[in-house]
Amino acid sequence: MQYSKFSEQFKSDSGILRLMQDLGEAVNQNTAMQMLGGGNPAAIPAVQQAFRVEMEKMLAAGRAFEDMIGNYDSPQGNHAFIDALATLLSQRFGWRVQPDNIAVTNGSQASFGILFNLFAGQFSPREFRKILFPMTPEYIGYADVGLGDQSIFTANKPLIERLDERTFKYRVDFARLNITDEIGAVCLSRPTNPSGNVVTDDEIGKLHQLTRAADVPLIIDGAYGLPFPGIVFTPATPLWDENIILCLSLSKLGLPGARTGIIVANPEVISQITRSNAIFTLSPGRFGPSLATRLLQNQQLLSLCAETIAPYYRARSRQAIALVHDLMADLPVRIHSSEGAIFLWLWLPELPISSETLYQRLKRRGVLVIAGQHFFPGLNQPWQHRHECLRVTYASEPSQLRRGVEIIATEARRAYSQRRG
Amino acid sequence: MQYSKFSEQFKSDSGILRLMQDLGEAVNQNTAMQMLGGGNPAAIPAVQQAFRVEMEKMLAAGRAFEDMIGNYDSPQGNHAFIDALATLLSQRFGWRVQPDNIAVTNGSQASFGILFNLFAGQFSPREFRKILFPMTPEYIGYADVGLGDQSIFTANKPLIERLDERTFKYRVDFARLNITDEIGAVCLSRPTNPSGNVVTDDEIGKLHQLTRAADVPLIIDGAYGLPFPGIVFTPATPLWDENIILCLSLSKLGLPGARTGIIVANPEVISQITRSNAIFTLSPGRFGPSLATRLLQNQQLLSLCAETIAPYYRARSRQAIALVHDLMADLPVRIHSSEGAIFLWLWLPELPISSETLYQRLKRRGVLVIAGQHFFPGLNQPWQHRHECLRVTYASEPSQLRRGVEIIATEARRAYSQRRG
Repeated sequence: MQYSKFSEQFKSDSGILRLMQDLGEAVNQNTAMQMLGGGNPAAIPAVQQAFRVEMEKMLAAGRAFEDMIGNYDSPQGNHAFIDALATLLSQRFGWRVQPDNIAVTNGSQASFGILFNLFAGQFSPREFRKILFPMTPEYIGYADVGLGDQSIFTANKPLIERLDERTFKYRVDFARLNITDEIGAVCLSRPTNPSGNVVTDDEIGKLHQLTRAADVPLIIDGAYGLPFPGIVFTPATPLWDENIILCLSLSKLGLPGARTGIIVANPEVISQITRSNAIFTLSPGRFGPSLATRLLQNQQLLSLCAETIAPYYRARSRQAIALVHDLMADLPVRIHSSEGAIFLWLWLPELPISSETLYQRLKRRGVLVIAGQHFFPGLNQPWQHRHECLRVTYASEPSQLRRGVEIIATEARRAYSQRRG
Repeated sequence: MQYSKFSEQFKSDSGILRLMQDLGEAVNQNTAMQMLGGGNPAAIPAVQQAFRVEMEKMLAAGRAFEDMIGNYDSPQGNHAFIDALATLLSQRFGWRVQPDNIAVTNGSQASFGILFNLFAGQFSPREFRKILFPMTPEYIGYADVGLGDQSIFTANKPLIERLDERTFKYRVDFARLNITDEIGAVCLSRPTNPSGNVVTDDEIGKLHQLTRAADVPLIIDGAYGLPFPGIVFTPATPLWDENIILCLSLSKLGLPGARTGIIVANPEVISQITRSNAIFTLSPGRFGPSLATRLLQNQQLLSLCAETIAPYYRARSRQAIALVHDLMADLPVRIHSSEGAIFLWLWLPELPISSETLYQRLKRRGVLVIAGQHFFPGLNQPWQHRHECLRVTYASEPSQLRRGVEIIATEARRAYSQRRG
């Protein structure tokens, strides 16, 4: 059989493909892999119990279960869910969000696929626009969703602020940020996947101003962020207006199996998403929204985030940092300030081998992480820093994490000592 | 905000968009619309009860529910589901199907979107291939999934066989079927949505031969067909080998809210689907596969199809045909031989108004059907027949169906009498 050029999109050795393959192999092998690579949320008992209770209540509530399984939702998404979410966002945050400001998708990845291709790519025979990531590293999954031959991404390097001997933080380099006519939208994840950075209110305010002035949308990927699941450890204000496209998800709330993404945007964008849903998938899945509606209606959702989910990951983050400080004390490793999400981003300055080689060595020793170079979509300039970092998930079992960091420490030590040797 | 050319894909007055909008409006209005337009399966009590029982068992089975909601599946889909399905297909039908012959998607619409763009479109700067529908009418949802400016479809007219004064059947016109170098794949739905035609074993055998000879895949859309949900009322044999790409779905089994599509194909195609899933959606939803796995493992799935689902729709089909014969006895209407699926396809020969005008008049009177002209994707020649047909869902409530057919009869009568008047 022969395949079109479209298939070339899937042939590249892309980071997200490799990540998903690693996860698949690890699941299928019975060897003890230390899974520090993926983005699966932790199994938090109180959260899982809350979903179980709502599932049981749904089964007890007349035909609610039958309605959920037996009907297509509208292409915009489940109306009860959208209504309940609009109520939460307008009442709690004062946003002017009506039901026509919200659409549901089959997960954040599906959201980005549509949004990036709507705001970037060919606009006319002579006009090609790109998505600008104002700061890299950024999410590995963005890199391959652009349709067509030409890359639809461009990106900036960050400023690196050394906070103490062990910690650093990326800052948006506004001096070099230029939203030219070539830019169709600006996008960032907050908290940032992979670094755990939470772009400050001041930074996001400036980005908001600049995108409004340039008349392009600011896409905020809040998959780990605000208002839910709220895995944010520093003060940060959720932001939305009609120029912002806020992407949310139920995955890190504990429902990755449900594949539910949410887009909050102006009605024109929502109409585009709705039409795209109809054409490419008829309508989004109804299971995730139906469960979540119940937690919105009984006011439990945000308190679950604030009282259970955020504290859980904050504690895990601190444990993970302590582990790295403990087991890698003799190495020049730096950790990005852990302000949110479920990863530690390790920087190994002047590592004599590439992060790719380190990744391969770790994989052979049964530790799966993600090599840093995959997290710079759109950054077209060479930069040694991108080959010096690893993303390590701390949502995995504590014993796995300890064993994994021990092996990372051993391999990093070997790499550094080879240079000196 | 400005949008790329990609957005033009959603702007056309496409049939599937209109269908989904009609459904959405009808749901949001409280007026009594007679919904004979959509493809929602009927609420069959015994089927819904089977799913409810399995859901309750899943909740009772240790952490099965928590595992289902709390983990990403592999991009290929749920391994337990794929294993159980491979066992069924190989044991029951003798197909050489292993787990690497099966992938899961977020519904059939998502399956077609990927498959059509894999096998059609630009292959090289000078080579552009198309999907051939060997016989139209064909499924309305195919029409808009092609990426890029140029249509990726081509289609043939059928032969029309008049079976009796009230009934007709479409036949593949093999004399005019030519799988040229321009064709990347051949696709048909079996049973056909919208006509309820079940292409015979003889016809499908010939198509199989021709596609093998041309070295292009034969895509069989079995959303309503074999082996499940099995809404087929005539003798028909399910067919698969490595040159066939069989698309199945859990929707017409009664789970449209779960959005689960299934592709059975050779491992190379499955690998492409898996990669596409990873890039565009990370992994497919886990709810539908988890429920269905239980019905596969307890051997209930096919008996539910044969003993409950097929007989239910067969009875509904007969009632609907009797209704049309009764209420439209004075009109020259013909019904396509109802051999499967959940629709009657009405042909109103020499109707003085177009099916589009009839659709509009019916909609004003509160009856939603789909105008026939939308069901000829890729047919580029003018043909009066395509403006003389309606698709009418008979899965809706019997009282709705009766009221709807009454109004269709009234409006058709008015249209025919205007010509005579």
